[in-house]
Amino acid sequence: MKVSQLFTKTTKNPPAHETARNAQLLIQAGFIHKEMAGVYAFLPLGLKVIEKIKTIVREEMNAVGGQELIMTNLQPREKWEVTTRWNDDVVDVWFKTKLKDETEIGLAWSHEEPIIEMMKPFISSYKDLPVNVYQFQTKLRNELRSKSGIMRGREFLMKDMYTAAIDAEQHDKLYNEIMDAYTRVFARLGLGDDTYVTFASGGSFTKFSHEFQTVCETGEDTIYLHKKKNIAINEEVLDDESLQKLGISRDELEEVKSSEVGNIFNFGTEKSEQMDFTFTNENGEKQFIHLGSYGIGISRVMGVIAEKFADEKGLIWPANIAPATVYLARLSEDSTVVKTTDKLYDDMRKRGIDVLYDDRDVRAGQKFADADLMGIPYRVVVSEKTCQSGQHELKGRTESESQMLDNDGILEYLAPIGS
Amino acid sequence: MKVSQLFTKTTKNPPAHETARNAQLLIQAGFIHKEMAGVYAFLPLGLKVIEKIKTIVREEMNAVGGQELIMTNLQPREKWEVTTRWNDDVVDVWFKTKLKDETEIGLAWSHEEPIIEMMKPFISSYKDLPVNVYQFQTKLRNELRSKSGIMRGREFLMKDMYTAAIDAEQHDKLYNEIMDAYTRVFARLGLGDDTYVTFASGGSFTKFSHEFQTVCETGEDTIYLHKKKNIAINEEVLDDESLQKLGISRDELEEVKSSEVGNIFNFGTEKSEQMDFTFTNENGEKQFIHLGSYGIGISRVMGVIAEKFADEKGLIWPANIAPATVYLARLSEDSTVVKTTDKLYDDMRKRGIDVLYDDRDVRAGQKFADADLMGIPYRVVVSEKTCQSGQHELKGRTESESQMLDNDGILEYLAPIGS
Repeated sequence: MKVSQLFTKTTKNPPAHETARNAQLLIQAGFIHKEMAGVYAFLPLGLKVIEKIKTIVREEMNAVGGQELIMTNLQPREKWEVTTRWNDDVVDVWFKTKLKDETEIGLAWSHEEPIIEMMKPFISSYKDLPVNVYQFQTKLRNELRSKSGIMRGREFLMKDMYTAAIDAEQHDKLYNEIMDAYTRVFARLGLGDDTYVTFASGGSFTKFSHEFQTVCETGEDTIYLHKKKNIAINEEVLDDESLQKLGISRDELEEVKSSEVGNIFNFGTEKSEQMDFTFTNENGEKQFIHLGSYGIGISRVMGVIAEKFADEKGLIWPANIAPATVYLARLSEDSTVVKTTDKLYDDMRKRGIDVLYDDRDVRAGQKFADADLMGIPYRVVVSEKTCQSGQHELKGRTESESQMLDNDGILEYLAPIGS
Repeated sequence: MKVSQLFTKTTKNPPAHETARNAQLLIQAGFIHKEMAGVYAFLPLGLKVIEKIKTIVREEMNAVGGQELIMTNLQPREKWEVTTRWNDDVVDVWFKTKLKDETEIGLAWSHEEPIIEMMKPFISSYKDLPVNVYQFQTKLRNELRSKSGIMRGREFLMKDMYTAAIDAEQHDKLYNEIMDAYTRVFARLGLGDDTYVTFASGGSFTKFSHEFQTVCETGEDTIYLHKKKNIAINEEVLDDESLQKLGISRDELEEVKSSEVGNIFNFGTEKSEQMDFTFTNENGEKQFIHLGSYGIGISRVMGVIAEKFADEKGLIWPANIAPATVYLARLSEDSTVVKTTDKLYDDMRKRGIDVLYDDRDVRAGQKFADADLMGIPYRVVVSEKTCQSGQHELKGRTESESQMLDNDGILEYLAPIGS
């Protein structure tokens, strides 16, 4: 895409109304737009990042047999009353509204109950199990405060997966496969080294649930790292019993701030008992179904990456989720330079290189500043000088040194990095 | 995908709670799930249709310079008060809810006002125009009744595009390009022959707006066709003045039921005057921006196609939006038949043919009935007999005669039809 055609613009200064660094940078770079506190629209460059994150997550969820579907925002009261979760004292983040006939309905803050109700007509026998479904869906949560930008919104995008299994064994197999898929997701998102499987409160059925927590100074959670074992404990379960269970001692732990980018929850048969979700086993007996739920905060992950990797110049995206792989900056309106850069742009696109072409007639400093602020992984500069030498300048976003390469060299370098 | 792995199942009889034919069939075939009246989840096969429709629409919107983004469901009151449209007497389909501090907020039934507010910081000069943005977004509308399945939901998916232009001339150019893009969309969706550009009420700025109406017995609109001129008039503007303006006489018109699958609206400067949306022209003078809005009801289109093309056996999808191009039915558990069909399945996938492989151990009649109910464009049958002859049976969904082809012949036939 050409920058001259992009309708968004960067701004030099952060917006006055934002305190969260991720939102400040993403607004400055033209990636998001604030509708109200905790509610953000995703503009073209921001939507590209979201879609690339979704693609990675989708590939890994499909690889473990997930079937994609999409549930609804509007929720009937009855489905949630069965589990007492319609009650605002039990769930304090409901947005509720009314039909014309005054029937109260809810706006989905989660989809656990509706997913189970949806599955019921399709599952009757052990032969119908296991089932593994997921969606990318907007969640609406009436948070009291919302000051963390897209790291904790009132409206946000989540990938939520649900499994139904005949017993604990079948459940555990799915659970472990999905744990592995999550590990692959965070590695591909560039968060692998700083994301820890974290033991957190497990509800009534199981001692622990597993959270995926990414170390992040501005995160809202506090976790205790055991770097040697590559695990962490959420402060909510940090007690002697838990430490003993995990075979670690308190003085081996390091306290850090973090953000919960994913979680995995084993319901056992608790929810299926509440909702009467059963199957018939091989002996013709009715049994309750083992359920699991598995979330990844898609827009939160984007916020964490924005916040975590940024430097004083702006955003820094890992190459596989950047809105473009390369920022092609043309520093002159001279016809030879224009022709050369146009050709390089076309060649890049032919090679499948995702390129943002700054064809504007503005000064070089602004082009460099925009490339840095937007966090595009590579920058290629074409000027009168580089056209004379036949070698243009290529520089990584976080590198201080650039290298000079001819057209073919640039294409060879960038093509494997991705589209 | 293999049918044995698909968690949804077909049902023989239509659901008792549905009167709309599209919803009956889509529920029977396992494409959608009803959450409540006018609110439907899209299950894997249904989501595939939605995504294929979106892909066609996205390609055509990008081709006319549209930049994709995504706005929000939650809406602050202030943005809508400016145009009086927060008022429930002006807009009677609002769902409204409240933040914890009792601030009333709305749920987006449209995105016109927020899109304009979002654009403001990016547009100041004539050099910033024109702008053309669009999104695929869920709309929530508090309809009094909702009995038309996914043809008119309380929650539905829409593609909405918005243009901003310096003057009527620049606006008209965009408007006509988008009109042409819409015509291409409906042609590609298989609705070209039955979709009419329809003159409807234009609001205060312009005499007419343009609707795209698809002839459909169960549609909620009534239009008057002029087949020779390939246009139609909505009953709301069918008066002598309109007829004269369009140069047609009343007795040339044919009354039909239809469904509004798209609309195109010229706001002129009415909305930008209300919302103070201006740019500075070449002479340094402030001027109001010309705005247009352009909708396509994505889930409605799916409903219209479901309803319109169905026969007594079930759904009939045009090949380019079908959840699969071919239904591969294996009629035996014999090892040769299994091996042959497995290989054909792999070969189809290698050739990029989107295939649904019925590998279940159920009787042939059920496989044929499911293939027909789901509306898959082609069916290939592999049995002991066809394995002996080396030629399998290929039949189009609406054809009565089948043809016998060997593996290569089947692949050659289906590969160009698409993935």
